[in-house]
Amino acid sequence: MSKIDDIFGRIAAADRPEVFITLRSRDEVSADFAQSVAGGGPLAGMVLAVKDNVDVAGLPTTAACPGYAYTPDVDAPAVAALKAAGAVVIGKTNLDQFATGLVGTRSPYGAARDSRRPDRISGGSSSGSAVAVALGFADIAIGTDTAGSGRVPAGLQGIVGIKPTVGAISTDGVVPACASYDTVTIFAATLDLADAAMAAMAGARGPRPFGTPTLLAAPERPVVAVPAELPSLDDNWRAAFADAVSRAESAGLVIKTIDLSPFLAAAKLLYDDALVAERYDAVGEYIDGGGSDLDPTVAGIIRSANRFGAVDLLRAHRKLDELRELAMTEWGDATALIVPTAPMHPTLADVDADPVGVNSRMGTYTNFCNLFDLCGLAIPSGIVDETDGSQAQFGITLLAKAHEDAVLVDLAQRLGAASPAASWPESVAPTVELAVFGAHMSGGPLTHELSDRGARWVGEVTTAPSYRLVALSTTPPKPGLIRDPSDGRAIQGEIWTLSPSALGSFLADLPSPMMLGQVELSDGRWVVGFGCAADAGAAGEPLDRDRW
Amino acid sequence: MSKIDDIFGRIAAADRPEVFITLRSRDEVSADFAQSVAGGGPLAGMVLAVKDNVDVAGLPTTAACPGYAYTPDVDAPAVAALKAAGAVVIGKTNLDQFATGLVGTRSPYGAARDSRRPDRISGGSSSGSAVAVALGFADIAIGTDTAGSGRVPAGLQGIVGIKPTVGAISTDGVVPACASYDTVTIFAATLDLADAAMAAMAGARGPRPFGTPTLLAAPERPVVAVPAELPSLDDNWRAAFADAVSRAESAGLVIKTIDLSPFLAAAKLLYDDALVAERYDAVGEYIDGGGSDLDPTVAGIIRSANRFGAVDLLRAHRKLDELRELAMTEWGDATALIVPTAPMHPTLADVDADPVGVNSRMGTYTNFCNLFDLCGLAIPSGIVDETDGSQAQFGITLLAKAHEDAVLVDLAQRLGAASPAASWPESVAPTVELAVFGAHMSGGPLTHELSDRGARWVGEVTTAPSYRLVALSTTPPKPGLIRDPSDGRAIQGEIWTLSPSALGSFLADLPSPMMLGQVELSDGRWVVGFGCAADAGAAGEPLDRDRW
Repeated sequence: MSKIDDIFGRIAAADRPEVFITLRSRDEVSADFAQSVAGGGPLAGMVLAVKDNVDVAGLPTTAACPGYAYTPDVDAPAVAALKAAGAVVIGKTNLDQFATGLVGTRSPYGAARDSRRPDRISGGSSSGSAVAVALGFADIAIGTDTAGSGRVPAGLQGIVGIKPTVGAISTDGVVPACASYDTVTIFAATLDLADAAMAAMAGARGPRPFGTPTLLAAPERPVVAVPAELPSLDDNWRAAFADAVSRAESAGLVIKTIDLSPFLAAAKLLYDDALVAERYDAVGEYIDGGGSDLDPTVAGIIRSANRFGAVDLLRAHRKLDELRELAMTEWGDATALIVPTAPMHPTLADVDADPVGVNSRMGTYTNFCNLFDLCGLAIPSGIVDETDGSQAQFGITLLAKAHEDAVLVDLAQRLGAASPAASWPESVAPTVELAVFGAHMSGGPLTHELSDRGARWVGEVTTAPSYRLVALSTTPPKPGLIRDPSDGRAIQGEIWTLSPSALGSFLADLPSPMMLGQVELSDGRWVVGFGCAADAGAAGEPLDRDRW
Repeated sequence: MSKIDDIFGRIAAADRPEVFITLRSRDEVSADFAQSVAGGGPLAGMVLAVKDNVDVAGLPTTAACPGYAYTPDVDAPAVAALKAAGAVVIGKTNLDQFATGLVGTRSPYGAARDSRRPDRISGGSSSGSAVAVALGFADIAIGTDTAGSGRVPAGLQGIVGIKPTVGAISTDGVVPACASYDTVTIFAATLDLADAAMAAMAGARGPRPFGTPTLLAAPERPVVAVPAELPSLDDNWRAAFADAVSRAESAGLVIKTIDLSPFLAAAKLLYDDALVAERYDAVGEYIDGGGSDLDPTVAGIIRSANRFGAVDLLRAHRKLDELRELAMTEWGDATALIVPTAPMHPTLADVDADPVGVNSRMGTYTNFCNLFDLCGLAIPSGIVDETDGSQAQFGITLLAKAHEDAVLVDLAQRLGAASPAASWPESVAPTVELAVFGAHMSGGPLTHELSDRGARWVGEVTTAPSYRLVALSTTPPKPGLIRDPSDGRAIQGEIWTLSPSALGSFLADLPSPMMLGQVELSDGRWVVGFGCAADAGAAGEPLDRDRW
């Protein structure tokens, strides 16, 4: 049975008609799959579900509002990039209408239900995408995230959700929620696969100005912030968060607690203040123009968003700036902030009873992120036994400052997530490889000069058999690498990768007689690496070792 | 006669009571001057005039509206930084009320008149500051610039105006005009002095996120854009602009013409669309609350700004984004854009006859700049004989992308402005010195590898007398610098300064056997410089020269 038959069988057996708003036919998907496997891109054979507020050419984009639907002629750049890498679109997934919600119930296509406990919500707004991955209907799925829509459902469904820095991926061809804060996100069962999808998408850059990532990894002993108080967090879930924090400590992260109040205060601006006008800007005219098929809760939120004046919006932005400054003062020297992804896992009935209140609590740990220009990575973090005897997926989210997405992947790896060697930002950020020998190697006394600059350890390496090491007359003696094709041998070292600015700053601080230039590796490649001044090398004491 | 007596004598003789809103007493200024000269900072003995929308502790801030005035306890950070560098505040200068205007006539303290032809306007809104410098009442003056207020009066008064990238200097303690686009600016008679003042202020960074400048100079043969059409430009002034362009060509700049339409279209958003709401946000409540001493034109503009909704503002921002994209497509590979600073020099009567229309034309070449996140440098560019027999100061403005302020200083220097070696962004940007020998030296075949990365030529340099040059067996043969304290001599080279990222990228592309590490200079300093791999150096042919 082919993978596609397998998937369609699983979909048929699952009785989850609400997951897909548009499901392509088995024949179409099988044909594309065969072509993808033959094409052999980095995502060859990977089945992709797309949230139905993101354009796929030829399929209707509904944003979970049938009356709003249109059928685009071209793929959103994010979709086009994944297709180009080999991903095969299986269909378009359900969502909280207009991506307004964190519950997954606000859709005329039906409430999306939790993959494991169908009396509970899926989380939203990228509800169908997350459930599709959790139930094996797709390998990867596109979501969007403005206030948590790409993280909350990842947390509840026990999968990985990557919410990149705002602007990292083009939002062209995406029905806006709050255009200034919208991001395209990825769901997958593993960080490895989610990262590969992000790497494929990362070339799909929109017109928004976007800085260059320079940190490719976290420092050796990163300081990581956790909230001093954990409002809204389910009592049963507190031990799971404490476990996550203690695992982080065991992994070498230095924990500090911070006051989350300024972070939490930003949420009010997003829903109860003028920032919500962005939602009206996006689809308000459809709604006020008598648009059909509206979810009443969503329509109510968006309709109310047209009451604000331009001056209100300016003041909300200023309030946001003030809160961001307070929040960043709390953040201080932290490399990242760890929070629970969702604070609880409500039932469909809980949401029916209090649709706005429950939704609002679900966003406690996600709402502030995009407003403060943070990037986020939601990962599973164990299972919680609930009081009713069922088991909840517990998840944490790692947050970092804008453009530090690679740091999050590195930290997740240290917390045990199977993750790629090079994280997705390296597919778009300029990087340089550096060959090091001696004290800069991993665990050495000078490793921090690399890791503090965001350099990432790549692996061990051997030079071409044309080098000698000498002990330089430094204190302590450092190894000097000298090229000597006539009487050389292969020397063992390490490769690190780093940004050009980190390399320049490393070179600026490098003391005499150390030098940097091209070094030949055993595979014939030449990379930037260590050498030493000729006079110092000549005066150095010969070493009869191939590794310092 | 002391400098201060001299200045006060000049002020008394000039009969320009409208220039200063608050003039400190000669005794106070003299006392501060004596202390400044004794203190010896970089601006020791420099007399500073401050636009009266910027706080100076103990002096009223009126923003040219007596009823609005307050007396701050602390200096604006920009003022504090200049004072710390030695500048002596002489007083607070007149402006178009609430910095709303480009003419200098909109003030209950009287219309500021041109320094040379008093029937004409000074230009505004930083009217008093520019006239104070032009008439020698101050060496340097602080202005502000949202839509041209720091450039138009510099152009009309024949002086230098630096309008840095938005966010480069804190706007704390400044009465906002349009807070998102406001900048603090500097006026001085020479670029040299204006740059020194900017260098002193550049540490006064506000909370606004701000990128790191990486380009310290323009490329060897920079492409510079000029407008294909010159709307609003006075017929008599056209030859002066053509002269400026042809001087730029003679100076080695490569001219390309571009369509300025998308740049010009942005101005409408600033005044006739929702962006103007920022002006209401700043002082609208004072005006609508029955505030006294209002200029009727200014009050009319600001009052009308409260009619926009939050959604209007979002749409105006989107329209601005679209225009910026179009404009940047026109801009293309240009290093800078050269425009006339002001298009004409109206009389006071011209402005009385059509206060809004004339003002609007005055901003033709300045309005778009901050909206598109450009930095600007206004410099004098000759004298124009007007039809009435009088002479106008003609000025041009160089514009570059955000954070490329240093490129503008470099270009102005190439156009003949007396300018400093290191431009002010280097006082805050991290830089590295690099010693080069041979083909990378100025005018050499590889100089572009430095200049294309924004490196700035610093000067010639001589190593400590401990080096030898050898001819390496490269094609063509490159000089290899080898340290040899026993048999060395002083080698001539050059110092360039560049950003760490430029250095890292330069190193990444540097071919074997060239290497970079510390080199000792004749003055005993060690800087990053060229060397070569030991084996290549040993195999090199000795050279009996001290310069390649």
